Amino acid sequence: MEIREKLYEILRLVKENKPLVHHITNYVTVNDCANITIALGGSPVMADDSLEVEDMVSLASSLVINIGTLNSRTIESMLLAGKKANSLDIPVILDPVGVGATKLRTETAKKLMKEINFSVIKGNMSEIKVLSGMDSIVRGVDSTEDTANGEEVALKLSESLGAIVAITGAKDIISDGKNICSIENGHPILARITGTGCMSSSLTGTYCAVTRDYYTAVIAAIATMGLCGEKAQASLKSPHDLGSFKVALMNSIASLSPKDLFDGGKLNEGKL
Amino acid sequence: MEIREKLYEILRLVKENKPLVHHITNYVTVNDCANITIALGGSPVMADDSLEVEDMVSLASSLVINIGTLNSRTIESMLLAGKKANSLDIPVILDPVGVGATKLRTETAKKLMKEINFSVIKGNMSEIKVLSGMDSIVRGVDSTEDTANGEEVALKLSESLGAIVAITGAKDIISDGKNICSIENGHPILARITGTGCMSSSLTGTYCAVTRDYYTAVIAAIATMGLCGEKAQASLKSPHDLGSFKVALMNSIASLSPKDLFDGGKLNEGKL
Amino acid sequence: MEIREKLYEILRLVKENKPLVHHITNYVTVNDCANITIALGGSPVMADDSLEVEDMVSLASSLVINIGTLNSRTIESMLLAGKKANSLDIPVILDPVGVGATKLRTETAKKLMKEINFSVIKGNMSEIKVLSGMDSIVRGVDSTEDTANGEEVALKLSESLGAIVAITGAKDIISDGKNICSIENGHPILARITGTGCMSSSLTGTYCAVTRDYYTAVIAAIATMGLCGEKAQASLKSPHDLGSFKVALMNSIASLSPKDLFDGGKLNEGKL
Repeated sequence: MEIREKLYEILRLVKENKPLVHHITNYVTVNDCANITIALGGSPVMADDSLEVEDMVSLASSLVINIGTLNSRTIESMLLAGKKANSLDIPVILDPVGVGATKLRTETAKKLMKEINFSVIKGNMSEIKVLSGMDSIVRGVDSTEDTANGEEVALKLSESLGAIVAITGAKDIISDGKNICSIENGHPILARITGTGCMSSSLTGTYCAVTRDYYTAVIAAIATMGLCGEKAQASLKSPHDLGSFKVALMNSIASLSPKDLFDGGKLNEGKL
Repeated sequence: MEIREKLYEILRLVKENKPLVHHITNYVTVNDCANITIALGGSPVMADDSLEVEDMVSLASSLVINIGTLNSRTIESMLLAGKKANSLDIPVILDPVGVGATKLRTETAKKLMKEINFSVIKGNMSEIKVLSGMDSIVRGVDSTEDTANGEEVALKLSESLGAIVAITGAKDIISDGKNICSIENGHPILARITGTGCMSSSLTGTYCAVTRDYYTAVIAAIATMGLCGEKAQASLKSPHDLGSFKVALMNSIASLSPKDLFDGGKLNEGKL
Repeated sequence: MEIREKLYEILRLVKENKPLVHHITNYVTVNDCANITIALGGSPVMADDSLEVEDMVSLASSLVINIGTLNSRTIESMLLAGKKANSLDIPVILDPVGVGATKLRTETAKKLMKEINFSVIKGNMSEIKVLSGMDSIVRGVDSTEDTANGEEVALKLSESLGAIVAITGAKDIISDGKNICSIENGHPILARITGTGCMSSSLTGTYCAVTRDYYTAVIAAIATMGLCGEKAQASLKSPHDLGSFKVALMNSIASLSPKDLFDGGKLNEGKL
């Protein structure tokens, strides 16, 4: 199947199956993550207590771990849920928000990557470079680096971890360790509201929940966010209407059909 | 007084008294819960530390306990606040989000129900069946069951607990152990954004704060959410505009007058 | 420079520098705080674990401490982050949400004020009176008192603490211990959505991050919220459209230019 056909099919499957997506995530963007999961066609559940995450993830079809506002209590829950998901062969997605900004984030991300087999790791260029052991300038949770040599970085990390690696930015890059796909959908305004990165991880979790082809799932998620961001931006009366943009983005996600995704994705596939 | 007149009067009282509604709730939908409480005419306060919940609930006119993202720290606070509210004769509402999905949720709900006298327990059919000790299929926090035999279930649980029991779904059912009221307001889109269940509990808490007639308060809350959901849905340009729907829902709640509630509620009263 | 020129300049600097603003804040309004920080031109980061707050604040240009949903874990983090910020000469803003409502809030605010040198303390009249050791009626997190003698209260507290003190209300009052500035922008609807107080603190943190003149920064923040609140209200189709108001407020903040702030602020400067 051609990639566009795969995108069509995976969105169709999400809408058909309404998969349960377990999140252990930050309290800043959690409401948006829940709403975007529903808007795409999934069913979100947020649970982060160590006494229940193993039970909860057992009911779910995927697990999203986001370290945006990690603490010692939730780190333990991330480890428990991730290991349980691994034992049940449920895909686990890591969004290493702000890794490199603090020692706690860097050490936690490393510990998670050591003890859990992630299906997907998705971050901005700064974050992925930190995870790759490269020098990087990190400043809070926003990337300070462009994705110029992103293909190489993604490919290498993907190869060494055996996980799909996605680097988001002006150009998004996804690799499965052999193949590279770049996506040119999107709009700079996506960086002007909080949570579009976290929401992309929720979309990734939702798509991964209905397939074993996680590479396609990540491409679908990033293309979905980029394409819907474009549509939402085009609907604005003024380019600074950030409040309206967030509303329009949720509208666009909920309206996106498999055919829209088939038609609208600007994908470049290749090998390095 | 006829039920419609009672609904008119209770909304009037909310707007007149601006009651303080203490919430111990989840971090997913907490912002929406605060905003809907204000929109109806109340004043929300969220506080969940064990060192302050007894002080806070003493200032409040009702307490909403929602276990959506419970943890050991907040469970202790729920127990302390609930007992204090009981001692001061302040109504306490339980929203047992996701009960049955994990052992922690089920055991916590049971413990709360044992140690606190709830005025109202409100959940979907799956959740209420779990609390009733019946077999139920639970999958995350969404109901998997329709409310076919809901009247019987609600009546029985209400009778045994001495609390008003509300089951929300396509048809909503409320019982005080003797009477049954079903509500046919609402629209399926209400299940397509996160938090409408939690927000209904906030509305319940707000109405309960101005009356001793908790049965009417719950009917008013469920009718308010259903009626405003219909109005919000009718205002949409496209049926998939979930972002716009959330905005319109908040507009509708804030615009709802006692007369609107009198005119718009589709209630069926009866005894079983 | 005249005050209006200073306002022009400080907003220009925010947009030029995109300062990183570290928040330790409540989980009710945190998403709005993040979005408004971006909308003004800053970059928000939320981190509250004691193992990382010192690292995080070291990267930031200001720190906002908001006790809206404090707990023992985050109180420790507030103290660590505040002291670290002091040692690095990074401005620290305190929003003492609900102080006076519970013993925990009052004692925590006092402890924070004893151990941290705040650049700015911003609250409603009830809260500032509690911090000043005056009798006050506190009911949840909303002010029950008008700002009639606010000038005197602000001046006194500012003098004794060596911090800028801001009292928000129908008339906003800011003092640096010598000067008084009152602001008559704003609209009552700002009190009908949750979080406008918290968001004002985020704006304050963002402005304080680009100047040493914290007095101007606070005036700019309060004028920004008032002015954008007016504009957002004027755009509504119905005066009760609280959902639309929140969206429009974010649009207005993101659209605000230095010239708009220069032209629109209704400031009265004076000495007492």
